[in-house]
Amino acid sequence: MSKILSHRTVRVLAIAGATASFALAACGGDETPPPAMPAPAGSTTVVPAAPVASAAPVAPPPAADQPLTDEGMWLTNDFPADKVAKQYGFTPTQEWLDHVRLSSVRLAGGCSGSLVSANGLVMTNHHCAHSCIEQLSNAKKDFVKEGFFAKTGNDEVKCPEIEVNQLTGIDDVSARVQDATKGLADKALNDAQRAVTATIEKECATGDNVRCDVVNLYHGGRYHLYKYRRYQDVRLVFAPEIDIAFFGGDPDNFNFPRFDLDVSFLRVYDGGKPLAPKDYLKWSEAGAKDGELTFVSGHPGRTSRQLTVAQLEFERDYALPRRLFDLDSYEGTITQFMKEGPEKRRVAEPELFYVQNSIKALEGEREALVDAEFLHAKAHAEHELREKAESTPELAQYKDAWKELARIQGEKAALQPRFDALSWHSSLFGIARGLVRAADELPKPNDKRLDEFGDARIPGTKQRLFSAAPVSAELETLKLSRDFVRMRQLLGADDPVVKKVLGKDDAYELAAKLVKGTKLADVKVRKALFDGGAAAVSASTDPLIQLAKLVDADARAVRTQWEEHIVSPEKKFGEEVARAKFAIYGTHVYPDATFSLRLSYGHVAGWMENGKQVPAFTTFGGAFDRATGKPPFELPKSWIAAKSKLDLSTPFDMATTNDIIGGNSGSPMVNKNAEVVGLIFDGNIHSLGGEYGFEPKNNRAVAVTSVALTEALGKVYGATRVVDELKGKK
Amino acid sequence: MSKILSHRTVRVLAIAGATASFALAACGGDETPPPAMPAPAGSTTVVPAAPVASAAPVAPPPAADQPLTDEGMWLTNDFPADKVAKQYGFTPTQEWLDHVRLSSVRLAGGCSGSLVSANGLVMTNHHCAHSCIEQLSNAKKDFVKEGFFAKTGNDEVKCPEIEVNQLTGIDDVSARVQDATKGLADKALNDAQRAVTATIEKECATGDNVRCDVVNLYHGGRYHLYKYRRYQDVRLVFAPEIDIAFFGGDPDNFNFPRFDLDVSFLRVYDGGKPLAPKDYLKWSEAGAKDGELTFVSGHPGRTSRQLTVAQLEFERDYALPRRLFDLDSYEGTITQFMKEGPEKRRVAEPELFYVQNSIKALEGEREALVDAEFLHAKAHAEHELREKAESTPELAQYKDAWKELARIQGEKAALQPRFDALSWHSSLFGIARGLVRAADELPKPNDKRLDEFGDARIPGTKQRLFSAAPVSAELETLKLSRDFVRMRQLLGADDPVVKKVLGKDDAYELAAKLVKGTKLADVKVRKALFDGGAAAVSASTDPLIQLAKLVDADARAVRTQWEEHIVSPEKKFGEEVARAKFAIYGTHVYPDATFSLRLSYGHVAGWMENGKQVPAFTTFGGAFDRATGKPPFELPKSWIAAKSKLDLSTPFDMATTNDIIGGNSGSPMVNKNAEVVGLIFDGNIHSLGGEYGFEPKNNRAVAVTSVALTEALGKVYGATRVVDELKGKK
Repeated sequence: MSKILSHRTVRVLAIAGATASFALAACGGDETPPPAMPAPAGSTTVVPAAPVASAAPVAPPPAADQPLTDEGMWLTNDFPADKVAKQYGFTPTQEWLDHVRLSSVRLAGGCSGSLVSANGLVMTNHHCAHSCIEQLSNAKKDFVKEGFFAKTGNDEVKCPEIEVNQLTGIDDVSARVQDATKGLADKALNDAQRAVTATIEKECATGDNVRCDVVNLYHGGRYHLYKYRRYQDVRLVFAPEIDIAFFGGDPDNFNFPRFDLDVSFLRVYDGGKPLAPKDYLKWSEAGAKDGELTFVSGHPGRTSRQLTVAQLEFERDYALPRRLFDLDSYEGTITQFMKEGPEKRRVAEPELFYVQNSIKALEGEREALVDAEFLHAKAHAEHELREKAESTPELAQYKDAWKELARIQGEKAALQPRFDALSWHSSLFGIARGLVRAADELPKPNDKRLDEFGDARIPGTKQRLFSAAPVSAELETLKLSRDFVRMRQLLGADDPVVKKVLGKDDAYELAAKLVKGTKLADVKVRKALFDGGAAAVSASTDPLIQLAKLVDADARAVRTQWEEHIVSPEKKFGEEVARAKFAIYGTHVYPDATFSLRLSYGHVAGWMENGKQVPAFTTFGGAFDRATGKPPFELPKSWIAAKSKLDLSTPFDMATTNDIIGGNSGSPMVNKNAEVVGLIFDGNIHSLGGEYGFEPKNNRAVAVTSVALTEALGKVYGATRVVDELKGKK
Repeated sequence: MSKILSHRTVRVLAIAGATASFALAACGGDETPPPAMPAPAGSTTVVPAAPVASAAPVAPPPAADQPLTDEGMWLTNDFPADKVAKQYGFTPTQEWLDHVRLSSVRLAGGCSGSLVSANGLVMTNHHCAHSCIEQLSNAKKDFVKEGFFAKTGNDEVKCPEIEVNQLTGIDDVSARVQDATKGLADKALNDAQRAVTATIEKECATGDNVRCDVVNLYHGGRYHLYKYRRYQDVRLVFAPEIDIAFFGGDPDNFNFPRFDLDVSFLRVYDGGKPLAPKDYLKWSEAGAKDGELTFVSGHPGRTSRQLTVAQLEFERDYALPRRLFDLDSYEGTITQFMKEGPEKRRVAEPELFYVQNSIKALEGEREALVDAEFLHAKAHAEHELREKAESTPELAQYKDAWKELARIQGEKAALQPRFDALSWHSSLFGIARGLVRAADELPKPNDKRLDEFGDARIPGTKQRLFSAAPVSAELETLKLSRDFVRMRQLLGADDPVVKKVLGKDDAYELAAKLVKGTKLADVKVRKALFDGGAAAVSASTDPLIQLAKLVDADARAVRTQWEEHIVSPEKKFGEEVARAKFAIYGTHVYPDATFSLRLSYGHVAGWMENGKQVPAFTTFGGAFDRATGKPPFELPKSWIAAKSKLDLSTPFDMATTNDIIGGNSGSPMVNKNAEVVGLIFDGNIHSLGGEYGFEPKNNRAVAVTSVALTEALGKVYGATRVVDELKGKK
């Protein structure tokens, strides 16, 4: 796998929460926006310039910033149909584009999906529904291990936290946002931007089933209002065993050849009945051939292709290593925790999955940034841009933007440890923080609230606060104790907030006591506190509520500092760089990814690795050859049993040149007839540097073929009702 | 703590083995020289230049390479007595220098110490004897937790693995080494160097109690033959409880103010009787005052102050992050492992200690390298040196050295994963590999053997192979399974050596089976295999011996490649840089540290931190104030009980400006009368960048005061026989 928002996943693991168990550390925040709305690309990630490098004289191009063959995550309302026509002889019409858009959905937690039947069937990845599958499991019935198939509609079970969004309309609100923030800086800019965004979103969100997000494109070059139909009644229909969904496990992750059936089917319900969508994707029974044109319609989470060299150096030296150190340590902890018994293994398994996936993704990104050639090309392009900007009178106003961005990286490096120290991973603490802040925020006018409590965002926040997902006390204790230890590591034992939290306690004992004492695992208790507002929260003797109150002033202070001194100015100067760039290179470029809908085009293709051709397709037979009978190369019993029935030459997974990134997980891959030929679930190892730039020779998207999906559903799982539905026979 | 070879510790944790449990991954090697002889500074650590940065135009100095006040780890036979005289009004005579040298000892595992009585009493840190204290403990009696005091000489217990070396003579063998390698490169250079070194060392080592090391100084500028008296009968006399030796634990490590009694006393025995050394240090009952001149005589393990910018960039981007990722993951694993029960806690505690210490040390080094100013200064100095070298006709021969070193970094980055993948941490596997290689190597002529099997080095190798240190099967399983997983991560599941080792097995199950099946925990079995040579090893059905044989060709291949393509050329071009530098700046500089005896001078001094003065001394009273009653701030019962008897104003720990680094752990700090005023056990956080350069304003060494030592020994522990011995009353 695993094109869940790669960066996001981690930011999310570290701070916000794309998965159930992390969900509320988010609106615990001190930090980036809540999970459903990733930070504007480039505004939250980026640190201090090594003057040595950034002042470097620059040598000849590879123009890393200019789109190359198949590069691009394009807006569906600004799609380069002419380029596609020229290269592939097919021109997508606006009707075609609209149909594909309306058939695509976003999973608010950080994935993509598609409507694939007249009865609201949604196709996405197994790893995108993983938390749901785990939440529906218990010590007696483990659907992660055993798979899940609802034999009838009545057997379909509601996922506690999955929200599906369908993009129904796009409005350009650039003028309104830009007018509201004109000439402002720092806190004033931040406040004005929050206010205008909240107002626009609230006007648009006419009910709980409408979700509206103001999307920052081109780093402030444009602001679009994305209006979604929001569905929160989403039920699990089918999921295979994890052993085949994630065959090869961490060793094979981000590698190819692959042999994964990384799929799950969900169904959207509306008013208690299956949704009957006007638009949905038809199925291609033939699949795609080598070289065939393919489109991917999905929600790439974030790219940072416009970052300046100083910002890239911050990523390389601070942001990525710091996150990786934390994730590596957590990976070690959970791995050992899982050895302590089958139930511990079961509850921690999704965590391990996300952590290992994030480590691999971030390490891939780091490897791109330590590649001297890559940074060299970036430095060259930047040098050229700055020279042009300086020699163009009307762009003179932007000439200090690069220097300012470099300066901000230094501040970011200094502030980040405190910011991280007060962003905790514990789910129960995240809920406590969310309840404490809800009591504080909701009485305020809409435009003065923290982002996640804006009227337009409350449904998402409530879904996370009131999630019925079970909570493992042991895992929570582990996570909370790690939060405490990390805070002490980052701030030192003598910091007042550390003393206030830990007192004379041992970190682990304190965490155990708090988790044992809290009643927040009970959703009813959370609802009572939420509905009771400030009075109820203030009267609460729940130890986690009390802890959340104890640290809230400190956590809010660093969040404010972060937003005003880092996020706002970085956004402002990033926008200046973007404007200079548009003025010089025109608008025939795509915006950085922002977890909003994009369409990429490409074709089925392998690549050369160490002088050898990697074929574009694998087969079912290859999976049986690779199987060892032991994890992570253990085929499920269902596959062993079905082997004789299967056509072993069936194409299993395939590689294409589509430009995708984390968040594209679960995206449909379609042919020119808008029929499903595949299901994106990963990229190869070379795709990871795609965060910072597209490398056309080796960057490949990885998908399950449509042929493999129906062959396995029918012959391995006997899920003919799903196959018939996909093929339109029902 | 913890000036154990910081870099080394890790290299050691990762590859070689300064501690008991890691000892033989070493002569398992594929890797750097064995523990007792750290790699020549600069030859093994260093990677790919970001051309962007290294081609940078360079701006005005801070001349990072020029010695500043108190900077320097000086040779005792080339000490700048005149500088000291000028600055402090005291001129150490050669007699003074010889006395201090002969009173200093090296602990072969990676620490320093000193002879402090007429009866062979050796003072070092608790953390330097930690592995011994743990090895003498068992499930019933935990000396780490409870401390140890031998009431009489008969109660002193032999440490399984501690070797003490006293430097008795130094010869300059530069001409002989340089003649033997003149004009050679790569494999030929490597072979010739190994041959001449082995020959010189063998001629010198006239018996098992003589240890001879050819020490590479000034990166090949000089080669000195260090002749040591080797003592392997070393017994434990006194160690306090770890709670006071390492009070404040990981949070306070490398920080100051500190309140640690990080001491242990050992005794060297010779012929079964306490040694009666001619030279030993007298005790200062008054200790040192603020501003007073202090000398530190010890064995700094390694500095890399001469690395080129390209090499520093390799450290920053590859070497340090890769090691830290591995260590962080291991730290998480052991932390959780230790929660599984008191016995697991006990056996893994020393590992955690070394791992956390290494993480902090390496992260401190990394922080220095991502500091733009620091690298900027290095780039400036390098630019100046290169310009001078290019414009000096007789130095023209060296002008390509920097370019070559940059090229080598790229190769190193590419080869390192394979090198690391085949360097395992399991102690039992290390022993297996050592036995397999001993059988292969010992029949060869001395000068053709792998370094660690040269005649002069066999005693050390045997001590590690036949160590009586107990082995925890659970911990070994954990380590070996991690070795397997890491190998698969680094090489991919399809690499032939990975397939050969793992077959169709699960990594953890395989490790458990191997550890359960091996008999190598029994020293007698090891001796029989060693004595039986190739025939015995070949006939052995021991599963770990078989595994070691299975991978030996691969492991040797990458070791050879590493030595010939990385170590040798890096040494060669590093020497060229060094020669150019000498030719230009003269020889009034000190060589990089090489775990050989050095003397540094300085004075007692606090420093400014965030605008506040940090005082140079802490007191006993401060420790009681800081205590919380919970780890890591829990004072032992003995201290609580003795509180009323103690003078709470006693100076406890102190900071000085001496230039030290990992390996200096346990070094005596003496006044101008050569009396002990303190015991080095740590540096502050600013000292960690000392690996790459000395920063005089904030870099501080941290020591326990002599006054604290005797006050605590007498009043807390009733160890009056030790106090009397130190004060010369016995």
